[in-house]
Amino acid sequence: MSEFDDATHVDVDGGTAIHDGWDINGNANGGYLMALAARGLRAVSGRPDPISVTAHYLAPGKPGRAQVEGTVVKSGRRFATVAGRLHRDGKPLLQLVGAFGDLSQPSSAYEHLSSGPPDLPPFEECVPRSARQGTVMVGMMDRLSVRLHPDHIGWLHEDRNGVAEMSGWFAFADGRPIDTLALLMVCDAFPPAVFHLDMPPGWVPTVEYTVHVRRVPSPGPVRCVFRSQFVQGGFLNEDGEVWDSEGHLVAQSRQLGLTPLT
Amino acid sequence: MSEFDDATHVDVDGGTAIHDGWDINGNANGGYLMALAARGLRAVSGRPDPISVTAHYLAPGKPGRAQVEGTVVKSGRRFATVAGRLHRDGKPLLQLVGAFGDLSQPSSAYEHLSSGPPDLPPFEECVPRSARQGTVMVGMMDRLSVRLHPDHIGWLHEDRNGVAEMSGWFAFADGRPIDTLALLMVCDAFPPAVFHLDMPPGWVPTVEYTVHVRRVPSPGPVRCVFRSQFVQGGFLNEDGEVWDSEGHLVAQSRQLGLTPLT
Repeated sequence: MSEFDDATHVDVDGGTAIHDGWDINGNANGGYLMALAARGLRAVSGRPDPISVTAHYLAPGKPGRAQVEGTVVKSGRRFATVAGRLHRDGKPLLQLVGAFGDLSQPSSAYEHLSSGPPDLPPFEECVPRSARQGTVMVGMMDRLSVRLHPDHIGWLHEDRNGVAEMSGWFAFADGRPIDTLALLMVCDAFPPAVFHLDMPPGWVPTVEYTVHVRRVPSPGPVRCVFRSQFVQGGFLNEDGEVWDSEGHLVAQSRQLGLTPLT
Repeated sequence: MSEFDDATHVDVDGGTAIHDGWDINGNANGGYLMALAARGLRAVSGRPDPISVTAHYLAPGKPGRAQVEGTVVKSGRRFATVAGRLHRDGKPLLQLVGAFGDLSQPSSAYEHLSSGPPDLPPFEECVPRSARQGTVMVGMMDRLSVRLHPDHIGWLHEDRNGVAEMSGWFAFADGRPIDTLALLMVCDAFPPAVFHLDMPPGWVPTVEYTVHVRRVPSPGPVRCVFRSQFVQGGFLNEDGEVWDSEGHLVAQSRQLGLTPLT
């Protein structure tokens, strides 16, 4: 079994475990927690694909036993909508709402894309995101192959280009295929785009995170780009796009975050 | 009392009414329904401002009595998170999750905006969106002053420019100030940006709609722009920005919609 499948396992009664090694300095990654919770909600929905999932982050996730609770609010022809939460000993970590459906057959052939995938050098020429970044340990990077655009690594040595954009490739280190569930994690697996700005670096707490899964990815690594257009008043957005090997948009994400607390 | 305040009134027990006249061909506007439901959730939260609200749309809202139910999931220092729903006779219309807080004092002075407000002619030179659009009655336009950019009205006479962008001004017809609650409706008050494309026109059902309120608006009409970057596989996104009279970003929105059903 792949590490991701193992780390997102949810029992039929909703029992689960936040696994060690999917963290940043000991706190589980927000995308991993969403994927874990959404796997539980997906089971409740009875549908194969997450279509739109929103999570509000209420407390940091430490490794250990946890529980996913989900209730079908409506089960319609195209979508089943589930409300739920991830909690530990009754303490809520994530509050979620999601629509689940079946993306195997596009419901319309009409297409209009105002832009395409990010322009990236080949996977091998991009820079692996390492698990160690100064004093910060990004444990999950041992399990992922996140490869950053060579123009987007200046922040690693205090050379900030002032453009809040982060792009690169994503794959699982163990070669697990990227399915619609994994996309929920992919959109939160990159360093924050604001690391390129002249703001105090630090942890960017997520208030809210929404992923729209737009299509089942074709095999292979995916190309990702994240942009923070508006940092203001202590808040920031980060918008993400994920594109598959055939050049199709497979996911869009948006986070509302807080500027780094220093 | 303003029409908007009247139409979004929620009793202390959550009882409310979906008002006539905030509709498109008889179905209540999605932004109006979110504002109505969020007003109920805001009361439950005990905080003055919606910060991030997500709604999933489960059934069309017809005028009549309805009920808002909300539960505080976590009440923290900065935010209170509320999960809830709007329903009629037990039938769910909207499933929601929202974070509420206090936007009166920005928590950080740091600012980085990658773009500014949309370039619009003065309010008086923009084109009022009328309540009648061919066979479609947009009843709520009697209560709102939505003024479209003169370059963004070609779709009204089948002259589509192929760029999925819709911009213009928003104000209440009765002069009610635009507060943080009203922004939840503002982001859904414009014609869909995809009306500019060569796709079959028609109703664009919303699956999911999220608004991030970024700042308390200064007095006066707000400038709005909506863009659908990616239409594919039967789904589309529409991203919105709302800017106040002092040039500050006050809200960001994103919808996941379905391409028009014909």
